[in-house]
Amino acid sequence: MLNARRPKYADDDKLHEECAIVGVWNAVGAAKLAALGLHALQHRGQEASGIVSHDRSEGRFYSRKGRGHVERVFGSPERIEGLKGGGAIGHNRYATTGEDMTSNIQPMFAEFAFGGFAVAHNGNLTNALKIRHRLVAEGSIFQSSSDTEVIIHLIARSVRSTLAERVVDALTQMDGAYSLVALSPKKLIGVRDPMGVRPLALGRIVGQAVGGGDAYVLASESCAFDLLGAEFVRELNPGEMVVIDDNGITSLNPFPPAVPKPCIFEHIYFARPDSVIGGRSVYETRKLIGKELAEESHPANGADVVVPVPDSGVPAAIGYATEANVPFELGIIRSHYVGRTFIQPTQSIRDLGVRMKHSANGGVLKGKRVVLVDDSIVRGTTSAKIVDLVRRAGAAEVHMRISSPPTTNPCFYGIDTPDRSELLAARYSLDEMAKQIKADSLAFVSLDGLYRAMGEPTGRKTEQPQYCDACFTGEYPSRLVDQDEGLIGASSGLPIEQAAE
Amino acid sequence: MLNARRPKYADDDKLHEECAIVGVWNAVGAAKLAALGLHALQHRGQEASGIVSHDRSEGRFYSRKGRGHVERVFGSPERIEGLKGGGAIGHNRYATTGEDMTSNIQPMFAEFAFGGFAVAHNGNLTNALKIRHRLVAEGSIFQSSSDTEVIIHLIARSVRSTLAERVVDALTQMDGAYSLVALSPKKLIGVRDPMGVRPLALGRIVGQAVGGGDAYVLASESCAFDLLGAEFVRELNPGEMVVIDDNGITSLNPFPPAVPKPCIFEHIYFARPDSVIGGRSVYETRKLIGKELAEESHPANGADVVVPVPDSGVPAAIGYATEANVPFELGIIRSHYVGRTFIQPTQSIRDLGVRMKHSANGGVLKGKRVVLVDDSIVRGTTSAKIVDLVRRAGAAEVHMRISSPPTTNPCFYGIDTPDRSELLAARYSLDEMAKQIKADSLAFVSLDGLYRAMGEPTGRKTEQPQYCDACFTGEYPSRLVDQDEGLIGASSGLPIEQAAE
Amino acid sequence: MLNARRPKYADDDKLHEECAIVGVWNAVGAAKLAALGLHALQHRGQEASGIVSHDRSEGRFYSRKGRGHVERVFGSPERIEGLKGGGAIGHNRYATTGEDMTSNIQPMFAEFAFGGFAVAHNGNLTNALKIRHRLVAEGSIFQSSSDTEVIIHLIARSVRSTLAERVVDALTQMDGAYSLVALSPKKLIGVRDPMGVRPLALGRIVGQAVGGGDAYVLASESCAFDLLGAEFVRELNPGEMVVIDDNGITSLNPFPPAVPKPCIFEHIYFARPDSVIGGRSVYETRKLIGKELAEESHPANGADVVVPVPDSGVPAAIGYATEANVPFELGIIRSHYVGRTFIQPTQSIRDLGVRMKHSANGGVLKGKRVVLVDDSIVRGTTSAKIVDLVRRAGAAEVHMRISSPPTTNPCFYGIDTPDRSELLAARYSLDEMAKQIKADSLAFVSLDGLYRAMGEPTGRKTEQPQYCDACFTGEYPSRLVDQDEGLIGASSGLPIEQAAE
Amino acid sequence: MLNARRPKYADDDKLHEECAIVGVWNAVGAAKLAALGLHALQHRGQEASGIVSHDRSEGRFYSRKGRGHVERVFGSPERIEGLKGGGAIGHNRYATTGEDMTSNIQPMFAEFAFGGFAVAHNGNLTNALKIRHRLVAEGSIFQSSSDTEVIIHLIARSVRSTLAERVVDALTQMDGAYSLVALSPKKLIGVRDPMGVRPLALGRIVGQAVGGGDAYVLASESCAFDLLGAEFVRELNPGEMVVIDDNGITSLNPFPPAVPKPCIFEHIYFARPDSVIGGRSVYETRKLIGKELAEESHPANGADVVVPVPDSGVPAAIGYATEANVPFELGIIRSHYVGRTFIQPTQSIRDLGVRMKHSANGGVLKGKRVVLVDDSIVRGTTSAKIVDLVRRAGAAEVHMRISSPPTTNPCFYGIDTPDRSELLAARYSLDEMAKQIKADSLAFVSLDGLYRAMGEPTGRKTEQPQYCDACFTGEYPSRLVDQDEGLIGASSGLPIEQAAE
Repeated sequence: MLNARRPKYADDDKLHEECAIVGVWNAVGAAKLAALGLHALQHRGQEASGIVSHDRSEGRFYSRKGRGHVERVFGSPERIEGLKGGGAIGHNRYATTGEDMTSNIQPMFAEFAFGGFAVAHNGNLTNALKIRHRLVAEGSIFQSSSDTEVIIHLIARSVRSTLAERVVDALTQMDGAYSLVALSPKKLIGVRDPMGVRPLALGRIVGQAVGGGDAYVLASESCAFDLLGAEFVRELNPGEMVVIDDNGITSLNPFPPAVPKPCIFEHIYFARPDSVIGGRSVYETRKLIGKELAEESHPANGADVVVPVPDSGVPAAIGYATEANVPFELGIIRSHYVGRTFIQPTQSIRDLGVRMKHSANGGVLKGKRVVLVDDSIVRGTTSAKIVDLVRRAGAAEVHMRISSPPTTNPCFYGIDTPDRSELLAARYSLDEMAKQIKADSLAFVSLDGLYRAMGEPTGRKTEQPQYCDACFTGEYPSRLVDQDEGLIGASSGLPIEQAAE
Repeated sequence: MLNARRPKYADDDKLHEECAIVGVWNAVGAAKLAALGLHALQHRGQEASGIVSHDRSEGRFYSRKGRGHVERVFGSPERIEGLKGGGAIGHNRYATTGEDMTSNIQPMFAEFAFGGFAVAHNGNLTNALKIRHRLVAEGSIFQSSSDTEVIIHLIARSVRSTLAERVVDALTQMDGAYSLVALSPKKLIGVRDPMGVRPLALGRIVGQAVGGGDAYVLASESCAFDLLGAEFVRELNPGEMVVIDDNGITSLNPFPPAVPKPCIFEHIYFARPDSVIGGRSVYETRKLIGKELAEESHPANGADVVVPVPDSGVPAAIGYATEANVPFELGIIRSHYVGRTFIQPTQSIRDLGVRMKHSANGGVLKGKRVVLVDDSIVRGTTSAKIVDLVRRAGAAEVHMRISSPPTTNPCFYGIDTPDRSELLAARYSLDEMAKQIKADSLAFVSLDGLYRAMGEPTGRKTEQPQYCDACFTGEYPSRLVDQDEGLIGASSGLPIEQAAE
Repeated sequence: MLNARRPKYADDDKLHEECAIVGVWNAVGAAKLAALGLHALQHRGQEASGIVSHDRSEGRFYSRKGRGHVERVFGSPERIEGLKGGGAIGHNRYATTGEDMTSNIQPMFAEFAFGGFAVAHNGNLTNALKIRHRLVAEGSIFQSSSDTEVIIHLIARSVRSTLAERVVDALTQMDGAYSLVALSPKKLIGVRDPMGVRPLALGRIVGQAVGGGDAYVLASESCAFDLLGAEFVRELNPGEMVVIDDNGITSLNPFPPAVPKPCIFEHIYFARPDSVIGGRSVYETRKLIGKELAEESHPANGADVVVPVPDSGVPAAIGYATEANVPFELGIIRSHYVGRTFIQPTQSIRDLGVRMKHSANGGVLKGKRVVLVDDSIVRGTTSAKIVDLVRRAGAAEVHMRISSPPTTNPCFYGIDTPDRSELLAARYSLDEMAKQIKADSLAFVSLDGLYRAMGEPTGRKTEQPQYCDACFTGEYPSRLVDQDEGLIGASSGLPIEQAAE
Repeated sequence: MLNARRPKYADDDKLHEECAIVGVWNAVGAAKLAALGLHALQHRGQEASGIVSHDRSEGRFYSRKGRGHVERVFGSPERIEGLKGGGAIGHNRYATTGEDMTSNIQPMFAEFAFGGFAVAHNGNLTNALKIRHRLVAEGSIFQSSSDTEVIIHLIARSVRSTLAERVVDALTQMDGAYSLVALSPKKLIGVRDPMGVRPLALGRIVGQAVGGGDAYVLASESCAFDLLGAEFVRELNPGEMVVIDDNGITSLNPFPPAVPKPCIFEHIYFARPDSVIGGRSVYETRKLIGKELAEESHPANGADVVVPVPDSGVPAAIGYATEANVPFELGIIRSHYVGRTFIQPTQSIRDLGVRMKHSANGGVLKGKRVVLVDDSIVRGTTSAKIVDLVRRAGAAEVHMRISSPPTTNPCFYGIDTPDRSELLAARYSLDEMAKQIKADSLAFVSLDGLYRAMGEPTGRKTEQPQYCDACFTGEYPSRLVDQDEGLIGASSGLPIEQAAE
């Protein structure tokens, strides 16, 4: 019944991924730390945010959720202080799965016979609709159209006795990609799915624990730790569950082992450049991709300037410029006064969108042979506008270079991609694509070039690729039950909510 | 786990009851009619309102809920128009049961295997917590602390095949008082509990149906029909269920028969004077109570003026003044600019509260022997302030007359009463009460006088009273399971929500 | 250029007057007292409110203004506390003069060479536009379309040396009706115009002064004093100016003497019934008018019930019922959940307006000969709807009785009246009016009857009436310069403001 | 009486300038164009925005002003459409002069005897307070503490007959820096002060005029034109006034000639890099300054990376890295989710401020000799935090290089600078400054180096510098009347306003 992945923004030209999660255990000011973590991870979702905290002395949970940026939802000190206690989990939402409903904002909460718990997760489950249908038939009541609520129902209905066991019980039934945090009065749980598609990292704040000692934090990306004053301990392994409580941290591997398939697109575009994922600096990887790109496809006749499409194209452009020995220049200026390209759920001034975000820096472009570096092309509409912007500013030639292979397939693991029919690279040959975006030339990094930049000197292992690269190859590493059974596409039966002001 | 009936307003001096419901079937502009009905029933609950509508052509439900008056929640035309369709149910909330959470605002909604439905109810269930505990143990997830959600879970888990059968299945398990409306894509259902504690009336709007013909409405009180352009058809009988669909109205009596016990306090205070309840004009009844009061307890030395405590004391004061042949005067002026006495969930200017609502009309009071007529005394604090107000304006004597018997017991059927320990009449003798409120004399109408005013010439039938009058007698007409099993009083395990703006 | 008196509400049926003022001198919590005073005077204007305070220790003024009720504008304790100091003046606005602009909200403020001052006034100046044109030509800049700003400019341009002298200088140039309060760092000034058209009263709060001693308050009506804990000292005389400062109260009579012409309509409708104006209880006067009305025009065939149009018709109906010896009954129930009839600046649900405010109490009306008592008829549209409401509820006969003479002329002294062409009584004979509103009979109290009720046993003195009764007689007690010179009617040249939220 | 230049943000470390202006004449959708222009100039002021438009067919002005970003104030299509007409002027405010009052938001409006006009200006007047005192003494009433209101009063009081003549009359009396736009029903006027301190540019939108033909626009910087679809015509000359009306554009030079003194700091920091000012590309200039800096002061022992303090330090860092042949790296990542460094009027999370805006990109910094490039140092507090951030990320050495000379003097021409006593460079030697910010070395570009980068091969002309560089030299190019007469520093006598919601 749900429309899980309807593309939102007709003229956007990028992929984007849903959601960030954070968890804080036993820390003074846990909700404040969670809010800072969500701020640091704002790039992973800007539609809505929520925090649930638990205060042990009062034996109560506290909750605040709202639409908009973290700053808007939690922006006043009183709000944060009202979320009492030493345990907290938080979530930034980008609405891929489920519709735009307040009840979809995570974390979600449920009461148990033996207490309450809250859950937030990041990713996309590929059999959530099938399980939801079964649960509804058994009398479960859903308040939202979110995957997360499916997990919560499975936890609530589990006959196991501890929260950790129930979480395992629930997740064992789920296919797809997720990183998850769960908070009960007695523990914080973090889980990364067996394929490890989405990242999840563990940090420690020395001396910040309630009553002294160290507090622990979980976050989608390591870049969140610095703002919290936390040190980066390590990433969770694929399939690992950590249970953090008064006895410290317990690491479990409760799921059947699977071949790791971390999402390669986190490295290309989604993660913040100052994060470390899979042990690799995201910034460094992007520069290396730029280097590969320059080696593989520098214009035969040379170029005068290398210009990034800001901001996501900057590291690759630096790598490219260095390798090609061509000046790196800010030929496109990005406005500080709108959000990250295309991640906003409405686009009222459609034609002006690109120009409100990007303006041409004429002096750099006029009469020049320009290499434009961007991270990906999805529908191609934004790329065409950017090329037009640069050309109208006087560029003599515009060569578009993309720091990822052609995106030919939708993602079912949490990155919001349009239908295959809308993907430029699925519809056209390379030459046709160049024509569509009106570039003098167009090139993408090769799959092997990408893997080399990821530290795999021999490139992609064809029979068992080291990463999930389904968006470039169509090789999905798991079953796609909802997709295969045709469950995706109908709208939810839930009421269309008017927000209560 | 829930604190079902915690008294809210420490210095209030009145009882109040929770909630109003309306239902509209197959009418052009159903949500607008529901909003007008809620406006007309605003006196039954002012904390929050909600409407769920269903549009058949789109096959979708629509929902809007918010805190505050109906005017605030639904006040702009666009909002109402966004609630599309020909079917709608609505609710005004006064928070007796459950805490102040957005998720407690009715109507509530659930998906079925075969579609969705919404439910709103008015009253109080006396075994809701016991059933809730059982459902939680079985894996049901509660999003609110409301009784209504218990009903919805029972409906969802029922194995019967139609909504009407499932509603009966659910309600058969519930004790206590309720009037309920339920909306599915195919029908509107209205139910009054077997004792008929809370009112529910049926109306018809000639020619208003979608596609022509008559539309039907349900409302807590008949006074709502006039504003909707509806004609009053009849009240539902205790234990009656009406199912309204494309085939018209079907009346069912699906519950085991019970002795009717309509709430006598609706007649004394809560209902609007222009309503007809139990076939009786509320206004006329209140005048008759005033007449009984004058016969039973006019001051021996006479009086100069009869002054109502506005507005609820006015009809009884008119009856009293006529019977006693003493001039009726507006000795207390009520401000239009604050809500109904004590029905507001905060009271920040505590000391000024009474004076912001009531002011003494000095010319009428100065040097006079004043009979003050009010409808009830709960804690006595407001009465004391009113007597003081009148006395400071120069009254020579102040005789307080109350148009109900002494309130000695809390209500478990939906009227928000403080604990017995806070009820003035449960703690003091009549003389002591007069001293507490500093009146020269104090009298309450007798139980038999009250019943005579209700059209029972021989008064109250002791062995089987004609009404529920437990607040005056302690004779509760049903089991009080949650109360007897000690389930009432703890707070919910749900998070304390911060409203999202 | 200004459209001073455009009628706002096409289907309203009442007159209404603009504005209330309060002033507080040297009191602990001056702004809080001012806000309470404005709350008590809310009936005089509901469109907007403002308070300017002065804090002597900081040598600063503070200001808060906003649209809506006092409760909305000043509703939180922090807001009031932010208006520091011991001196404050406040204003409730009803928009007769000037357009609906934020900059029109009073009090208004100006800097002098020797300091700042704030002014608020109540009434209407009949040569304000002429003077405004002169000032603009001389280079004065107006930020609003309010009369008050004209006064402020005259004060600023005066060459006199003290604020009191400058105020006199300015007001001497003005025609029309006003009561005014002005606040400087060193004094509070109150002025009533030489004719004394609008009321202004002086009160004292014993022991409330900053540093001990008594604080003083000024208010449009005495009814405000009780809520402030103030005692009523006296009304200001027509043409009197009081200057309140550290030396106490000085009373001046700086204007040429004039024949007092207090507004008689304050007594009929506008003032709160518990106020004392001109030494007379407003409530008592209204009852006496009802008595005169019954004597003059009780239906020849008798009546079964006397029913007030609530709330303003209640006192006259009580007087009428007593005199006619017919039962007084609440045949029309007024909703608590909308503002005072027609005083709201928008009326979106035009057809529903009357029914949302008033509902028929059928039991009282059915089959009865009803005398309906109301205070005035302006356009007649509301009266027609009320008569219809009563008749549809089953009344056998409806006899409308009005506690004022026919309103045949617009007011130029601050009561918002439509053009003469819209006044029912200016267009029709008595019989025709009865037909228009579909009443079985219609009668107004006579002019002499009205004066008798005002304590003038011989009625109205024709050659020199004791009150301003121009709305009934067309005898305006002052020049109407702007009107006579055709300055009224064009819109202001100021921008049409969009409120900044 | 006014506190013209009180520093607002105690721990900020940058200069900032007030305000942007735009004007649009005879264009379809003038207000929309003005709003887009303000969006493009958002970097010049983020505290508040306003637009006044004029619609010729209705003969009315329209106005909208509000606090916050352009997007917030004008964000919905209905708001913009409500600002009707073909003429519009707009303003972004950054609050240097005047306090934080709604009435200070520009444009400001006044009525004339012959119509209305609106004015917005950018800059700072150095004798505004003196003139204001004179005007107040003559009876002018000020509603704001803004310089603009002084200009408006002078225009209103002028005895000249046309708006253009009156504007000249008024501006001739003013000292200091300003660019100004004024709108009347018949014309749009643009003026640049005789020294040309602030920029102002003219553009044309082909075919956009109401009724066909070309529309004209004025904007603080040329970067605004692209977004409006306008072509850049030229910059106004110092002392030039353009009058745009139905007869086209008239250029006047009504003021006594003066030596041009454009602000050099626009080029260093304030203007957008894609603007052209004084015929020079701002981006290119900044790169050249970086080049000069590298030549003058590259660390003797070499460096491993050049890292800009984003975003304002980026162009200079590129120039530096190229000249020094050291890799340019993004060692500091700037969050997209907060506004431009320190330009926000509150700073509640004081300690976290820098870290919420900037995070260290560890991989780039660890073990490296880092050259940090920033544009200026004001108080030094932010610089110290940035150095600390980089060092804690593992940098072996941190060499700070600044692309402006030491800031030793406050600006009186519109850039918000703290008192001299708070300027790091006014208090300490170069070595002491390096210690304060804990850098291993610190260097500023030389004055001559700066001038060379500005295209002056022989550097600064000592006797008659080509630019206003008073912030670096203390050589103010005009009288500082208010400053010299001690008028600056007291707070305004106007009330402290509470915003009305």
